[in-house]
Amino acid sequence: MASPQDRRWLAAAARLAGRARPLSRPNPAVGALVVKDDIVLGRGWTAAGGRPHAEAAALAQAGDAARGADIYATLEPCAHDSARGPSCSDLLAKARPARVIIGCGDPDPRTNGKGIARLQDAGVEVMVVDCPSSHRSLEGFLMRETRGRPFVTLKLALSLDGCIAMANGESQWITGPEARAHAHVLRSRQDAILVGGGTLRDDNPTLNVRLPGLEDRSPERWVLTGGDVPDGWRKLADPADLSPLVPAQYLMIEGGASAAAAFLRADHVDRLVIYRAPIVIGGGRPGITDIGLGSLPDAHGRWARSDSRMLGKDALEIYERIPCSLAS
Amino acid sequence: MASPQDRRWLAAAARLAGRARPLSRPNPAVGALVVKDDIVLGRGWTAAGGRPHAEAAALAQAGDAARGADIYATLEPCAHDSARGPSCSDLLAKARPARVIIGCGDPDPRTNGKGIARLQDAGVEVMVVDCPSSHRSLEGFLMRETRGRPFVTLKLALSLDGCIAMANGESQWITGPEARAHAHVLRSRQDAILVGGGTLRDDNPTLNVRLPGLEDRSPERWVLTGGDVPDGWRKLADPADLSPLVPAQYLMIEGGASAAAAFLRADHVDRLVIYRAPIVIGGGRPGITDIGLGSLPDAHGRWARSDSRMLGKDALEIYERIPCSLAS
Repeated sequence: MASPQDRRWLAAAARLAGRARPLSRPNPAVGALVVKDDIVLGRGWTAAGGRPHAEAAALAQAGDAARGADIYATLEPCAHDSARGPSCSDLLAKARPARVIIGCGDPDPRTNGKGIARLQDAGVEVMVVDCPSSHRSLEGFLMRETRGRPFVTLKLALSLDGCIAMANGESQWITGPEARAHAHVLRSRQDAILVGGGTLRDDNPTLNVRLPGLEDRSPERWVLTGGDVPDGWRKLADPADLSPLVPAQYLMIEGGASAAAAFLRADHVDRLVIYRAPIVIGGGRPGITDIGLGSLPDAHGRWARSDSRMLGKDALEIYERIPCSLAS
Repeated sequence: MASPQDRRWLAAAARLAGRARPLSRPNPAVGALVVKDDIVLGRGWTAAGGRPHAEAAALAQAGDAARGADIYATLEPCAHDSARGPSCSDLLAKARPARVIIGCGDPDPRTNGKGIARLQDAGVEVMVVDCPSSHRSLEGFLMRETRGRPFVTLKLALSLDGCIAMANGESQWITGPEARAHAHVLRSRQDAILVGGGTLRDDNPTLNVRLPGLEDRSPERWVLTGGDVPDGWRKLADPADLSPLVPAQYLMIEGGASAAAAFLRADHVDRLVIYRAPIVIGGGRPGITDIGLGSLPDAHGRWARSDSRMLGKDALEIYERIPCSLAS
């Protein structure tokens, strides 16, 4: 059984994993800790481009001290050798830790259980914990591996009455500088971002990351259209088929109202991130057009608030898609 | 100078004042405490119909012990005798307290400073504290006395995308039972409620209070229309002129989208109470139609969030109109 302290170390490793995102792509963003007697001897996260892996980085930091230690990894250590180095399960077995505690099994068929088996064959005690922080830190990877599409965030900057612009189209600005900076950080963590064809034509948005030091984090730019797209953009024809986006793990929909509606209609939105400005527009342009809702009861049981806080004068509201199996 | 403890007692008196609302009407809902050596000797709030006043009730409870005590009152004690009893300032002077601490001056010309003067003439020390809790507990009274209209709350039950119904009009239910019960409590504290003519025709709402034990708290029902109104309803022709509502201290706008917009356009909304359901409707009926906004910057600096909390699965968001003098 994993102890509460084991769970805390896994949560800490998941926090570290956040540093790997998004530059670890196309590899998952993993975090690892080497711990002995409650002292951290090594910390690692997946490096840019995917190598070294988190476990290799943490082991390199710990050196011989890893022997007899506990090793926490957010994802099952890989079982496949690569031209770029040995598998993590072999590396870990060689380090002879007391235990390896894993936050989430790896659905990648090259590993899926084989990493655990290899460690156990080498006489290492392995525990797999169903760790919510690890799962959350891997949500893009898990979505891609299990459903063949990225994890989709729909970002909306809305007035209190749900508008993204005045009726005449005036839309700058709905939200304040704090919310806009937050949205840029969010963008910098995506692999891909998408706008609708109309938004691309009308606004010609740059959609790059303009935060100092993060300029190189600008995601791939996609547009939802059946037609031609300008240089520097890629095209998605159908929000019901997101496979063209693979290997992207994280996609954010940046507007407009029709693109948002198209993804909601396809039930391909996993998270709503709403920046709610303290303004009333009144009769403005709605942030979401028709999503094909059949009746009002069908709208319920789909979204649950997971976070909210103030960003300057605006409120940030985050909602998660309730898995069908949990919906009331 | 008022001490922090004085301010705490005033806040407690303001809390008591809440019990007077709405049945004290047309009188203000006042709270009073008699305190000696940090022990409460008397508590009072304005009775149904307005008499006895809060101070009289608190003094009656304290009896002779009020001599030398501190008396906290949220509003300046009245200076006018009435067929229903002597003025509170005379009653207080006779009780010979050490001090009377007042949370808010009374703008009613029959009292306005005269209550304080009468106490001081009788040798009682008087302190007037600018107490935010007292002011807030009297916001309807102060609005009526200083601006000749009630304090106006606009209540909205909205989807995440700002809709009050599907495009086909289906609107039951947007919010859950907790939010609807909260709205009934809010309604029970109003003197008047109003709907637009279209809402009255289409929905024929009862708009009464259906909470057990509060059935007698149903407010006066008003409809915004230039035409005829059914029995049991009163009519307001112009949201720019709310004087027909006086002596009501508190008015709540209950819908629909056009009535909400009309009051916002007239700048006659003091508070927004938004019940935000965790649902997306998409292309539904907006909660607020055109408010005559000239440009987007004009929408800013008007509303500030004062409270938010969860009510079941819904979020309650409360916004206050920022006084023009404070707007950035």
